Amino acid sequence: MTVATMEKAYRELTERWRERALLDSCATVLAWDEETYLPRGGVEGRADQQALLARLEHERAADPRVGDLLAQAEAAGSSDELVVTNLRLMRREYDEACRVPATLVEELARITTRAQGAWERARDANATTGYLPLLGRVVELTQAWTDCVRDGRSRYDACLDSWETDLTDAEVVGVLDQMRPSLVALLDQAPAPGAAADDAVLRRPVPLDAQRAISELALRWLGFDLDRGRLDNATHPSTMRIGPGDVRLTTRFTLDRPFEGLLSTMHELGHGLYDQNLADDQFGTPAGEASSLALHESQSRLVENLVGRSHEFWRFALPQLRAVTAAFDDVSVDQIYRALNQVGRSTSRIRADEISYDLHIAIRVELERALIAGDLAVGDLPAAWDDAYARDLIRPDDATTGVLQDGHWAAGMFGYFPTYTLGNVIAAQLYLAADAALPDLAGSIARGELAPLIGWMRDAVHRHGSRYPAREVVVRATGAPPTPTAQLARLAAKYADRARG
Amino acid sequence: MTVATMEKAYRELTERWRERALLDSCATVLAWDEETYLPRGGVEGRADQQALLARLEHERAADPRVGDLLAQAEAAGSSDELVVTNLRLMRREYDEACRVPATLVEELARITTRAQGAWERARDANATTGYLPLLGRVVELTQAWTDCVRDGRSRYDACLDSWETDLTDAEVVGVLDQMRPSLVALLDQAPAPGAAADDAVLRRPVPLDAQRAISELALRWLGFDLDRGRLDNATHPSTMRIGPGDVRLTTRFTLDRPFEGLLSTMHELGHGLYDQNLADDQFGTPAGEASSLALHESQSRLVENLVGRSHEFWRFALPQLRAVTAAFDDVSVDQIYRALNQVGRSTSRIRADEISYDLHIAIRVELERALIAGDLAVGDLPAAWDDAYARDLIRPDDATTGVLQDGHWAAGMFGYFPTYTLGNVIAAQLYLAADAALPDLAGSIARGELAPLIGWMRDAVHRHGSRYPAREVVVRATGAPPTPTAQLARLAAKYADRARG
Repeated sequence: MTVATMEKAYRELTERWRERALLDSCATVLAWDEETYLPRGGVEGRADQQALLARLEHERAADPRVGDLLAQAEAAGSSDELVVTNLRLMRREYDEACRVPATLVEELARITTRAQGAWERARDANATTGYLPLLGRVVELTQAWTDCVRDGRSRYDACLDSWETDLTDAEVVGVLDQMRPSLVALLDQAPAPGAAADDAVLRRPVPLDAQRAISELALRWLGFDLDRGRLDNATHPSTMRIGPGDVRLTTRFTLDRPFEGLLSTMHELGHGLYDQNLADDQFGTPAGEASSLALHESQSRLVENLVGRSHEFWRFALPQLRAVTAAFDDVSVDQIYRALNQVGRSTSRIRADEISYDLHIAIRVELERALIAGDLAVGDLPAAWDDAYARDLIRPDDATTGVLQDGHWAAGMFGYFPTYTLGNVIAAQLYLAADAALPDLAGSIARGELAPLIGWMRDAVHRHGSRYPAREVVVRATGAPPTPTAQLARLAAKYADRARG
Repeated sequence: MTVATMEKAYRELTERWRERALLDSCATVLAWDEETYLPRGGVEGRADQQALLARLEHERAADPRVGDLLAQAEAAGSSDELVVTNLRLMRREYDEACRVPATLVEELARITTRAQGAWERARDANATTGYLPLLGRVVELTQAWTDCVRDGRSRYDACLDSWETDLTDAEVVGVLDQMRPSLVALLDQAPAPGAAADDAVLRRPVPLDAQRAISELALRWLGFDLDRGRLDNATHPSTMRIGPGDVRLTTRFTLDRPFEGLLSTMHELGHGLYDQNLADDQFGTPAGEASSLALHESQSRLVENLVGRSHEFWRFALPQLRAVTAAFDDVSVDQIYRALNQVGRSTSRIRADEISYDLHIAIRVELERALIAGDLAVGDLPAAWDDAYARDLIRPDDATTGVLQDGHWAAGMFGYFPTYTLGNVIAAQLYLAADAALPDLAGSIARGELAPLIGWMRDAVHRHGSRYPAREVVVRATGAPPTPTAQLARLAAKYADRARG
């Protein structure tokens, strides 16, 4: 095997991967459109489009020619670390694709698109009726998919691994078990929620135009490039990278929840900055993509919570806000800081405080593991949800504030939720390292200078893409693998501060 | 050849056509996104996406298996008229696709996407500099494409035929030559434009929210189903049918041009109603699509002009408008009618009155024919444009009001403009037939009852898709093939009326 053969094989592999990435980016435009502008009558056609694109992607992923090329390239070997990484990741994708029939991939894309449409309608109707049968079908198809790829592992392990490479049920349970006692203790110590003065300030109405202007300020503070991206309104905030020059955030503005809109923008901004900082010229190669959702989520939780819910950020942001709206002219930084860090047991994950958030995740992990294992029937899910919430947090009043609050399962994203908790854990650890490395981090945030922090994250995390496993990125950046220690210490300190404040 | 073989071949052909239509519908979502929300930095990636989808469509169109299936089905024959039509249209598409190399199709999709981005930037800069080289490349690729398919015909004939089946240069010239003397005479008789009182009423500012509300009223009056479509704001109004349940209109709202926004919506509404009235279950089959752009344009021009610029429509619409905005409380129906039908020589096609409109088209036909024939270099186009306008209408002041006003050529749509004139011609002829068939058409319009007119168009035009050639649809609906007689008579009568009014 000559070097030339190797190079030729690797080049063809890269071209094939880029073509598949391009097809996938078409599917991402369609998915973004589903979240933002697709008319109700278009859902069926969209499901057919997504099914077709998924099949075409899968045909490319499992093409025997890829197997030949991989064998050639692997036999020749390479001294280039990036090539070695790409070949390893390509091999992983190819082997997995070969185990899954195209019909299953196609049907999963079709049914998850339909199920997401049904979920939207179920939320509008506050009733699970039309949605549960489709969710049941998504669970069955996901189970069938895990049975193709799991190779002796549990079904849930296969799900976890598909979102976060090598993540296992044991690790997830370990992290949650380690965190739970501290979180519950912090939650029990917290003052009773609803100290009315605290909450009311968050519910002052701000016209949607002004809310949008405030979110656009946040984009500017954090350095998101609007020539290479967008911010739209959607029911369910998300971030989608269509390509190097096109990263799209969605957020949700509600008249009397202005801070929710801003923090939702800041959450997606964390994702969006990561996506904009990936190496453009590596688009479509495995190493050029952001593969670790835990790392991705660490960036969104960092911007939302470690920046967006910090006292120093609001020292800078409140005067800026006052230039856009008069709604907070009589409010102090302390009041906003206290209101935004109000703690309590609630029914809503996305509105949860930093302490209870991971308890919401633990409920989802418990239920999705049971669904995928076949231990919980989809028909019994709404009651199981309500019971778990009653046990750990608070019983929901209805379906919309209960089992219908998240669309992840409709989208087939079983095993995705744990990456939120890992994201919280990693965010705290990265922030600690950035704080040690950067002079006066808190001071720069209070002056509205976010570039040093984001620049540090870019160098430590974003620019690597998938060149290293997530764990290695964290070790390189912080000197240690991810553990909940930093996050638990941070929360304890923050809420001790707050108790004094 | 048995009936069963025939049915099997036909079924596979239909499935293959539907798959290609689905790919094409993905490209349409991307094209809609380009018109509405694509960030500037996403243009290059979008060009790659469109090139890939175009290649995949072409691979399907020119697949030898299609040739085999067509031969089988044709040999067997069919007594089903719809099957015969579909086979005839499939044969046409297949034979043409086989003549064009995939690389050319791919490159055309890539370069036209880039050229449209460059055209947008050129308009912003009011300078043709960065745009002309890309337009030159579009012309070259279009010429290469015509050379693949023209088979002894002129290049321009091949262009025309690609937008309007069997349309020829001779027919276009014949229609324009027949219309020109009457149009010029009407134009010369018209009172000098800029009777200031007339125009000023059209320029009263109306907030964009109110303009959007007015356009949404128009959607309701005309029966456009927003559960199966959308209306968005865009620089360049257009209509795109993504699928049976998803027809998207774009319009353009400008603060001090409220009637332009409404009439632009009404124009696209004419297209949109046609698209929503096509038979859903025939989506993806050739006979199920609207193939005649002249027929399509007849519907948009009908709703925009024969309804939207009529006295009876404004008798109904003005009171409705007053419920949304106070801007026209002191204005009479007569004033609006006169202002909307103001005649004059101008530089702008989309703002042109009904008389001069086709003279704008004639200039484009003259120039695009010369470009495609190779008789006019792209570098000389801006000067040639200005000279033609100076000769026939009025010399433009700058590039934006001159050669940059239309994006059709950037999109590779050479030979498309004549369908606007044919649309005007057919609209007048169809309206006359509808008026004869329906009791008191003018009266129902004055009462805001548009359903009878649109229902008549649905039965006479929309529902047929491509089952019959455009000419045959017109003959069936009006008793005669398309001629400019009705349109010229209509304009003469309308402007005689107006002179008296």
